[in-house]
Amino acid sequence: MAKTYRRVVLATHPAGMPKASDVRIEEVAIPEPGEGQVLIRNIYLSIDPYMRGRMRDAESYAPPVKLGEVMVGGTVGQVVSSRHPRFAEGSFVNGMMGWQEYGLSDGKGLRLLDPAQAPISTALGVLGMPGMTAYFGFLDLCQPKAGETAVVSAAAGAVGGLVGQIAKIKGCRAVGIAGGGKKTRLIVDEYGFDAAIDYKSEQDLRAAVKRACPNGVDTYFDNVGGPVSDAVMLNLNLRARISVCGQISQYNSETPVMGPRMGWVILQKRARMEGFIVSDFAERWGEGMEQMSAWLREGKLKYREDITRGLDQALPALVGVLEGRNLGKQLVQLSDNPTR
Amino acid sequence: MAKTYRRVVLATHPAGMPKASDVRIEEVAIPEPGEGQVLIRNIYLSIDPYMRGRMRDAESYAPPVKLGEVMVGGTVGQVVSSRHPRFAEGSFVNGMMGWQEYGLSDGKGLRLLDPAQAPISTALGVLGMPGMTAYFGFLDLCQPKAGETAVVSAAAGAVGGLVGQIAKIKGCRAVGIAGGGKKTRLIVDEYGFDAAIDYKSEQDLRAAVKRACPNGVDTYFDNVGGPVSDAVMLNLNLRARISVCGQISQYNSETPVMGPRMGWVILQKRARMEGFIVSDFAERWGEGMEQMSAWLREGKLKYREDITRGLDQALPALVGVLEGRNLGKQLVQLSDNPTR
Repeated sequence: MAKTYRRVVLATHPAGMPKASDVRIEEVAIPEPGEGQVLIRNIYLSIDPYMRGRMRDAESYAPPVKLGEVMVGGTVGQVVSSRHPRFAEGSFVNGMMGWQEYGLSDGKGLRLLDPAQAPISTALGVLGMPGMTAYFGFLDLCQPKAGETAVVSAAAGAVGGLVGQIAKIKGCRAVGIAGGGKKTRLIVDEYGFDAAIDYKSEQDLRAAVKRACPNGVDTYFDNVGGPVSDAVMLNLNLRARISVCGQISQYNSETPVMGPRMGWVILQKRARMEGFIVSDFAERWGEGMEQMSAWLREGKLKYREDITRGLDQALPALVGVLEGRNLGKQLVQLSDNPTR
Repeated sequence: MAKTYRRVVLATHPAGMPKASDVRIEEVAIPEPGEGQVLIRNIYLSIDPYMRGRMRDAESYAPPVKLGEVMVGGTVGQVVSSRHPRFAEGSFVNGMMGWQEYGLSDGKGLRLLDPAQAPISTALGVLGMPGMTAYFGFLDLCQPKAGETAVVSAAAGAVGGLVGQIAKIKGCRAVGIAGGGKKTRLIVDEYGFDAAIDYKSEQDLRAAVKRACPNGVDTYFDNVGGPVSDAVMLNLNLRARISVCGQISQYNSETPVMGPRMGWVILQKRARMEGFIVSDFAERWGEGMEQMSAWLREGKLKYREDITRGLDQALPALVGVLEGRNLGKQLVQLSDNPTR
């Protein structure tokens, strides 16, 4: 077994899009677990837009990552040595071990995975944080009804792709907004969306939304904010529900971004707009996992993974996600996956 | 009795702030009521911000007033002759008779008033549309809890003044935003708000809201939109509720108004923002009237009326309301009130 491992720590708070010099790769000795601890070899690291927020020098959802600290992130790994009664050597676990090849855990927040039930990587996607984000953020906040039109932005992403498929399961017309033909084809041909809008190729986004949503927009699951959301807002139906999950178009801004004021739309359409974070639904996690697992087994949910290899690829992968270059759930593979 | 009466019809759709030439005063013969009709002499005409929206050449909440049609408006009046079984001659009624001195009604939407219960003008204020707007828009959408901080804009207005007083009844810290010392003194000294912000005298509105709301903002009842609302948004607490009742700062705009994007605040604070119109609560009107009447009898609700006289003052009064020059509920008195 290796004696050292690599980890990525935050070197500076990025200005705008993160760059290589904002992080530092360190090589340190692999520790031994103490009493009640497990040592985990990480196999997959999840790359998610929220990570940009954690690199800021300001409180957001959660405390920011401090300079010199390991970057935060969800992981799937294998226990290599254990002094914890619940986690045997060789078992697979999902946790928040961060951007590193190995990590010690006291078991808190660690979840055992059964590779026979679903591929272990799904714990970072459809059966993990993105899956629960789509499930609760769409069903609870958007309250879709059969026959309604449900629009989602960043529709080819890990969350957006699931939102559209859940909308279909619920009998809605699912319309996705994504950037580029690869993504729009993916969500229509593979995920079964009714229509897709390539925001990069449209001159008049408002008109494009109108064409794709001839009966107007009843629910909007917003991952991006900015002009894409403006175009959707201008097509809302009366009593529309908007779930604000992300504002990825704004994450790299250092100053407030200006845009058309939308208060009058909220008023005129008596619309409801609500922000959330998936941890708000922590107590109902079991319900979401059970339903998403069932839909997955029934073949009603499809997903795609975009896997890059090596810890040094974590930052480029995050930049890729922020620039929308990934196709499906972005993962970084840190070591071999013995289950496949 | 007079043989003719005056009415105000829309002459052109205003560009920006309405002006005298946008309406036309007509003098016409007073009609006789047909079978099932009543003839009403209007005493008070209510002047409300929504009227600006009805002057537009575009669908809003409700169909716009057409050119040549009598301007829409709530009224209190007295039945002068009746061929309707429910409305005796001499009875007082509240309805939507519009900007005119007399009017015919078939009784639909007409409500009998008892001058012994409350002054008849309250049917256009605390016991009418503004009162119900404050009651349902605040209690239902803001869901205030005792100990929370409730902020309201246009706080000296017919609706805003009541919202703050209901907030106090519910045990909240009530903070009002209004323009000028007369208004801020009114809401603190007479209505019992805990604090008031004069937005016209503050250099840094965000800091002013922070000073007035040391524990942050839990609920915001928004009548105005624009920079005042931006300042409140930047002081929201987690899970804040925003009731969007009006956007008076935007009503005269012909083009979309730009402002800082606030999606990230909604997201970060997991806030909920919802628009409404009081008619959404039509089925629960009785509940609201009963509670507001009780609070009024108990001396828990104070109100003020700003009464100008003569139909030719209706348009100037509307401009005054849109410019925030009224102090309390704006009424135009069209004929003598025999109950006082």
